[in-house]
Amino acid sequence: MRGAPKLVAWAIPDIPLIQAGADIAAIISSRAQAAGLRLQAGDALVIASKIVAKAEGRYTTLASVCPSREAEALAQETGKDPRLVALILSESERVSRKRKGVLVTEHRLGFVSANAGIDQSNIEGGDDAALLLPLDPDDSAWRIRARLRQRLGVDLAVVISDTHGRAFRVGNVGVAIGVSGLPSLQDLRGSRDLYGRVLEVTQVAYADLVASAAHLLGGEADEGLPVVLIRGLDLRSAHGQASDMIRAAEHDLYR
Amino acid sequence: MRGAPKLVAWAIPDIPLIQAGADIAAIISSRAQAAGLRLQAGDALVIASKIVAKAEGRYTTLASVCPSREAEALAQETGKDPRLVALILSESERVSRKRKGVLVTEHRLGFVSANAGIDQSNIEGGDDAALLLPLDPDDSAWRIRARLRQRLGVDLAVVISDTHGRAFRVGNVGVAIGVSGLPSLQDLRGSRDLYGRVLEVTQVAYADLVASAAHLLGGEADEGLPVVLIRGLDLRSAHGQASDMIRAAEHDLYR
Repeated sequence: MRGAPKLVAWAIPDIPLIQAGADIAAIISSRAQAAGLRLQAGDALVIASKIVAKAEGRYTTLASVCPSREAEALAQETGKDPRLVALILSESERVSRKRKGVLVTEHRLGFVSANAGIDQSNIEGGDDAALLLPLDPDDSAWRIRARLRQRLGVDLAVVISDTHGRAFRVGNVGVAIGVSGLPSLQDLRGSRDLYGRVLEVTQVAYADLVASAAHLLGGEADEGLPVVLIRGLDLRSAHGQASDMIRAAEHDLYR
Repeated sequence: MRGAPKLVAWAIPDIPLIQAGADIAAIISSRAQAAGLRLQAGDALVIASKIVAKAEGRYTTLASVCPSREAEALAQETGKDPRLVALILSESERVSRKRKGVLVTEHRLGFVSANAGIDQSNIEGGDDAALLLPLDPDDSAWRIRARLRQRLGVDLAVVISDTHGRAFRVGNVGVAIGVSGLPSLQDLRGSRDLYGRVLEVTQVAYADLVASAAHLLGGEADEGLPVVLIRGLDLRSAHGQASDMIRAAEHDLYR
């Protein structure tokens, strides 16, 4: 395979169901080791936000919510449970779009997504349980990375991924909502193309590409593969956080 | 590495500059072989739309364009070359958003993107040259796949990828504009989660994930790596085309 740049990704098997307070870094390193995967400097771990949220105890129940009048009205409009709508609003800055069955908001973390990332699948506690996103996923990524460095003595990159729908296109993709040790954006502005012409404006959403690549292995349903190890990424400009990828409202033509 | 689901991607090195009329399938198979990569049944090739367009001779020049009054007005509004605006309009169904420096349109192929995918970088012919997208990228993917099958005697999947910006988020990602032999959407509706709850509506934009994964190796500037081989994808439901991922206008909350 001489000369061919290469990337390898493994889904780390046998990650157990995560409880509040769990040490994600310890679980990942022991499960990787058990699968014969030796974590190396320069590797990236893509971790589903769901297990980070679970470890951080971001559970709530619909029963604990008392919907406002605004939530009741929006619930009627969208056909959703008023208590779920109240939770969505409490996690959001504002409503972006609404329609029967659909409530898209601008999340307090800045991104625009359906249902404020609140999750009712793959959660203990039945129909009443809901899981909020991690409080500060960039910080969660930083802390998990620090724990891994402490345990393993090597520096890995950590991406916390979520699943978003999109304007214009059908189907969900992976996005990075927390990043540490990896460029979130790769700036090609000023690079030259093959003919020496200066490329005008090209920024690559590198961390989102990484999250999407991991989704090819991670899956969303009952695969139970919430952690993907990727080896071979370009970490030369290894700084940035997921919040760098939020387009400011004043530069957004669609918000 | 027992039990760990695995994915491997290689950028195929030494793809030459592509001329109109080039046999992309022949070039890819010979370059892969020269790099020691043996193409196998179930492999997917992600091919940058640019080289497909070049092989299909989709070149034009700004000098050949006579801008309409509408194009002149839009050029003034966006600060773009009126001849480029005229080309963009000729490839588009309608304008979606415009602003100084930005012209987003609904392409005749259905997707919403900047500048109708017209490319002026990495093209011979200087500042006057422009390259349109392939005429029918789903069909291009089908034909390249058929040629590969003929040459190699094995069935590969082919994705033709492009680079799109996005609403809400900074940075470009890879998208599939042509697909053959690969599920474009993976439908998880009706799947059960880890706790047996039926997932409500989940469709994964599988071919877009594949295109984004390839972008991690392929790059956009002077890397010159327009073809990425991916091994280990889930091709169980291997049908679909890129046009399946276009959200119909009546279901789009942002168009």
